[in-house]
Amino acid sequence: MTHNTFALKGTICFSADAQRINIHENSWLVCEDGICAGVFSELPKKYSGIPCRDTGDCLIIPGLTDLHLHAPQYTYRGTGMDLELLDWLNTYTFPEESKYRDLTYAREAYSIFMNDLKKSATTRASVFATIHVEATELLMDLLEETGLKTYVGKVNMDRNGSSALQETSAGASAGDTRRWLEEIRGKYRNTKPILTPRFTPSCTDELMTELSRIQKEYRLPVQSHLSENPGEIAWVQELCPNTRFYGEAYDQFGLFGGKSCPTIMAHCVYSTEEEIALMKTRGVYIAHCPQSNTNIASGIAPVRRYLEEGLHMGLGSDIAGGSSLSILRAMTDAVQVSKLRWRLVDDTCKPLSLEEVFYMATLGGGSFFGKVGSFEKDYEFDAVILDDQNLPHPQKISSRDRLERLIYLADDRNIVGKYAAGRKLF
Amino acid sequence: MTHNTFALKGTICFSADAQRINIHENSWLVCEDGICAGVFSELPKKYSGIPCRDTGDCLIIPGLTDLHLHAPQYTYRGTGMDLELLDWLNTYTFPEESKYRDLTYAREAYSIFMNDLKKSATTRASVFATIHVEATELLMDLLEETGLKTYVGKVNMDRNGSSALQETSAGASAGDTRRWLEEIRGKYRNTKPILTPRFTPSCTDELMTELSRIQKEYRLPVQSHLSENPGEIAWVQELCPNTRFYGEAYDQFGLFGGKSCPTIMAHCVYSTEEEIALMKTRGVYIAHCPQSNTNIASGIAPVRRYLEEGLHMGLGSDIAGGSSLSILRAMTDAVQVSKLRWRLVDDTCKPLSLEEVFYMATLGGGSFFGKVGSFEKDYEFDAVILDDQNLPHPQKISSRDRLERLIYLADDRNIVGKYAAGRKLF
Repeated sequence: MTHNTFALKGTICFSADAQRINIHENSWLVCEDGICAGVFSELPKKYSGIPCRDTGDCLIIPGLTDLHLHAPQYTYRGTGMDLELLDWLNTYTFPEESKYRDLTYAREAYSIFMNDLKKSATTRASVFATIHVEATELLMDLLEETGLKTYVGKVNMDRNGSSALQETSAGASAGDTRRWLEEIRGKYRNTKPILTPRFTPSCTDELMTELSRIQKEYRLPVQSHLSENPGEIAWVQELCPNTRFYGEAYDQFGLFGGKSCPTIMAHCVYSTEEEIALMKTRGVYIAHCPQSNTNIASGIAPVRRYLEEGLHMGLGSDIAGGSSLSILRAMTDAVQVSKLRWRLVDDTCKPLSLEEVFYMATLGGGSFFGKVGSFEKDYEFDAVILDDQNLPHPQKISSRDRLERLIYLADDRNIVGKYAAGRKLF
Repeated sequence: MTHNTFALKGTICFSADAQRINIHENSWLVCEDGICAGVFSELPKKYSGIPCRDTGDCLIIPGLTDLHLHAPQYTYRGTGMDLELLDWLNTYTFPEESKYRDLTYAREAYSIFMNDLKKSATTRASVFATIHVEATELLMDLLEETGLKTYVGKVNMDRNGSSALQETSAGASAGDTRRWLEEIRGKYRNTKPILTPRFTPSCTDELMTELSRIQKEYRLPVQSHLSENPGEIAWVQELCPNTRFYGEAYDQFGLFGGKSCPTIMAHCVYSTEEEIALMKTRGVYIAHCPQSNTNIASGIAPVRRYLEEGLHMGLGSDIAGGSSLSILRAMTDAVQVSKLRWRLVDDTCKPLSLEEVFYMATLGGGSFFGKVGSFEKDYEFDAVILDDQNLPHPQKISSRDRLERLIYLADDRNIVGKYAAGRKLF
């Protein structure tokens, strides 16, 4: 036991597995040097006298993971919700992202994003920045300060952007990426780089070849988009006639999972059998982004199928395709669209349960970051304290129902405490 | 001009029609004796010196109408979201509603509901209570105090409830309804009764015959449920073999619209051609409740079709099938599910626009209450002031985009002022 040992007391909730949530009422959750030491109904003697934050009747859950979001799109979330993916990118996204060449603008916008992410229930996130090296480093500086644990990617795109938002060549894109990686080397404790080819339509084969080299050299994880929208998928097939399915467009460059290349692919709304099989073989993480898939009319991903296959799954807000930064909201969105999918598309795939989406938001996505998303012993200590006092009710309800209710109804006022890797953020 | 004349100043937004939102920046909205006197870019001389609330940069929109919600279900919203309609009613709803025989319980629960409704952007609502006369009157007392303009219905149900929640006979149900109507006669200014047969499976033909008499005697409007869920519809067909479609089960008793019987039917997810035609003939109002239809896996109503037919349409929160009391949220839910319907069910029905859902939430549903839901001259003065200062952004955005953004992102902190029929609520 070290001097960095403390406890939280309250009603402690975390996934046993995708089907069950462990709930320990009136219990202690102990943190030693940033690591969970366990959950105890009585505080063991060896911990007597450690600092304890008694949260009263609050619920304590693992910090949530947002596996997919675009930081530069945050400040225009909730506008322009009238187009499908490709038109939406050209009309709203690319013009906005082009502004991040201006560091003053970037600082103002990223500060707004950072302030809200701090107040959210998210402790881990995998974030797209823009193509701009300086603004990406600025974002990393800001995120580092928050204490949140994040991956951040400078975006690569050398085709099909706009004159204002596109790198001039594969070489220029790769060069900027290397410069970025060198400039941040050893600089951060909480913030790590992730290789970020925007999506296949944005990256020439030449660029993908360069990125493959960089990935191996720097041993970077990878994030991108996959099989989100029918128009996009048809376009990828045109651009990459040598591939049988979209995922191969990444895989042919070694940027699609595997032990030395942990990979997050956002969306997977329309993955084929072959793509699913390859994701399974390669251990690719799927970032399910239900609100974004709804807002830009992409469709509903077959999450039940993916869970049954045992694929790695987490949730993403996909700001600004998704309008809400809240992964609590992403949980309810995931349940809701799964019900519509059951009703309208395939009634053999039963809707997702609260237990399943809670798992995806904690252990499911968290495991991309290591031992994250649980209060089992030896997990990194990411915790969020939820207070439901402002949601009064006359009836007695179980702790499990209080958790469901908070997931449906909470906003930042209900998030009253947060820890990432043992560090108290508030 | 009377001494009850005042103005609000700000950016004034209201529907011109279902396709266009009028936006008047930096303008005056004048109220005379509870009625809109107009929107002015410069305050006419005759109004000089009237009290003016300058909202600065705020948006001012018409108060929103919630055409369908169950007040007694409010405090368990966001729990039990794992069943379809009929099981959901038996498992969660009926046991909870049975508690309202206890007035102490009813007061506690209805006070929670009332406090939150006050803070919302809703100024008009059509509300289901329970079968209990005393608790229904208590709810009406509480709502009267808020200044909100509401219809409230004591629920009728004499079959297929539970031993704890069912009236003992058609006669007893009708008798309680008459007693209720007599006890509240002339009692309220803001709160009116509405006849509320729960839905066909809950009401015997004998009861419907009685209610038909009461409707004519008291000239009451009617609210109920229609064609929400496939299991429910099949059950109605069994219960009413003499009807060709669900709506006829109401219509055969004269409880399905028409000039002397204004009627709201919630849901209409699966209305047949004949049912649609009859609703059109009868001027039935459809309360579209997108979140509820999602949460209890009912499906997605063909709202585009209904709008094209020129049916009366408004939005409903359908607490607690819907978890959110916010009609701002109902607008975004309506847009979102319409996109999924376009993608998954029928790509000839294009998704709803922001303009269309804004219309449904204001003029569309408001017209059930009279000249309500607009700032045109002679409309009742229902207004909500929205402040987006806590949603900063670095880019300039249009007032129309600010409105969209508030609809997607606002919570009660953004609702900083509210007026119903000219009365300032805050």
